[in-house]
Amino acid sequence: MEPSQGFGSGAIRVASHAPVSFHSDMKSLTEYLWFEVPNRRGFVNITRTVEELVRKSGVTEGICLVNAMHITAAVFINDQEDGLLHDYEVWLEKLAPHEPVAAYHHNRTGEDNADAHLKRQIMGREVVVAITKGKLDFGPWEKIFYGEFDGRRRKRVLVKIIGE
Amino acid sequence: MEPSQGFGSGAIRVASHAPVSFHSDMKSLTEYLWFEVPNRRGFVNITRTVEELVRKSGVTEGICLVNAMHITAAVFINDQEDGLLHDYEVWLEKLAPHEPVAAYHHNRTGEDNADAHLKRQIMGREVVVAITKGKLDFGPWEKIFYGEFDGRRRKRVLVKIIGE
Amino acid sequence: MEPSQGFGSGAIRVASHAPVSFHSDMKSLTEYLWFEVPNRRGFVNITRTVEELVRKSGVTEGICLVNAMHITAAVFINDQEDGLLHDYEVWLEKLAPHEPVAAYHHNRTGEDNADAHLKRQIMGREVVVAITKGKLDFGPWEKIFYGEFDGRRRKRVLVKIIGE
Repeated sequence: MEPSQGFGSGAIRVASHAPVSFHSDMKSLTEYLWFEVPNRRGFVNITRTVEELVRKSGVTEGICLVNAMHITAAVFINDQEDGLLHDYEVWLEKLAPHEPVAAYHHNRTGEDNADAHLKRQIMGREVVVAITKGKLDFGPWEKIFYGEFDGRRRKRVLVKIIGE
Repeated sequence: MEPSQGFGSGAIRVASHAPVSFHSDMKSLTEYLWFEVPNRRGFVNITRTVEELVRKSGVTEGICLVNAMHITAAVFINDQEDGLLHDYEVWLEKLAPHEPVAAYHHNRTGEDNADAHLKRQIMGREVVVAITKGKLDFGPWEKIFYGEFDGRRRKRVLVKIIGE
Repeated sequence: MEPSQGFGSGAIRVASHAPVSFHSDMKSLTEYLWFEVPNRRGFVNITRTVEELVRKSGVTEGICLVNAMHITAAVFINDQEDGLLHDYEVWLEKLAPHEPVAAYHHNRTGEDNADAHLKRQIMGREVVVAITKGKLDFGPWEKIFYGEFDGRRRKRVLVKIIGE
């Protein structure tokens, strides 16, 4: 039991299991997912694709890394609810507006996507998900999303699975 | 040695060690921590609990993933200092205000927690911590926190340890 | 194939490979990079240093964790473009201003770096990068940066490589 801290508090209860040792070899799987989002911005639920790759990997205990390979895109975990995805879009535009394009030094290079580099830092480049008993070890509402902030061209996401 | 970049600069010095090979089997440990924060928002220092799980795992070289399993909560690493936790609370409320509740489309579903989904993206879903010589390989002030943004109900955090 | 979701959409195509099994032992490498950024804030491109450590580790399939060991610094992946690094500096100062110092409770401890703790949450503590065929598995523009928000003193970054 840990003492509670800060302005709130909550008891910790641990659901306990014995550690597991493996006698088989380490496995890995590497896959690249391609996207071409037709608009500048968009969110794509990629959960089922990642689940299929976990099955294919044969890994029963390990981790699954999913990351954008482009620096104007994100991978994050949140809720599959259209209102929320709309709220993210509005919120990110407020925190890191696309306009005025000339306000960003990066756009002097001929790009107009400086805001996309900023938005991606809020949402995150990657997620690392535990694999337990051969499946993504997810809470009830966790879904993996690709977040595109400068679309209309082909981009990749990397899925790397390692474990036993 | 890497050239310095950007608007600041700093020399890199590398403290160097030989790579380590392991001849034992891979190990893993999976644990679920339960929380029920009595207020809507709160921070809980879970460092000691995670340290105990690392000991229990028997892993000496590897990584420890700690992630919220709910999408209105965060896991992050920062300082155990009450003033700072207060500053996070004020700052997150400014960047992603709870009110007006009706400003968020997500809240049309009957929820009032859209802001919690946004706040969690700033603070992060997960941390990945190195395990070296059987311990969390931490800097002097690093502490692991559970960040609750929509509490008053039971929620889980996953701890997954893999390594040798 | 996953259905598209949210306000945008994009087809997913998977570049497919067979899973790989390893018959050698697990390897790990632990290194500490030291920084002393001469200004309060600065960004340092550490990509080549991390690449050299991956080579040194001998790991061909695995992951590389790179994290700040101090809680007023970040490690993130984005573009080596001076205009963009300038834009990050301006943007972070807007989202989490240094002044007025007295606005933050944390600074009542005698510190003046509360904003640095906030800025680091936006940019992130760590990155996890896949290692494939002995190299960091990077998209065309991905570079690893150390982000300093309270410099003028020595600080460390941890590089942990595990795999086969």
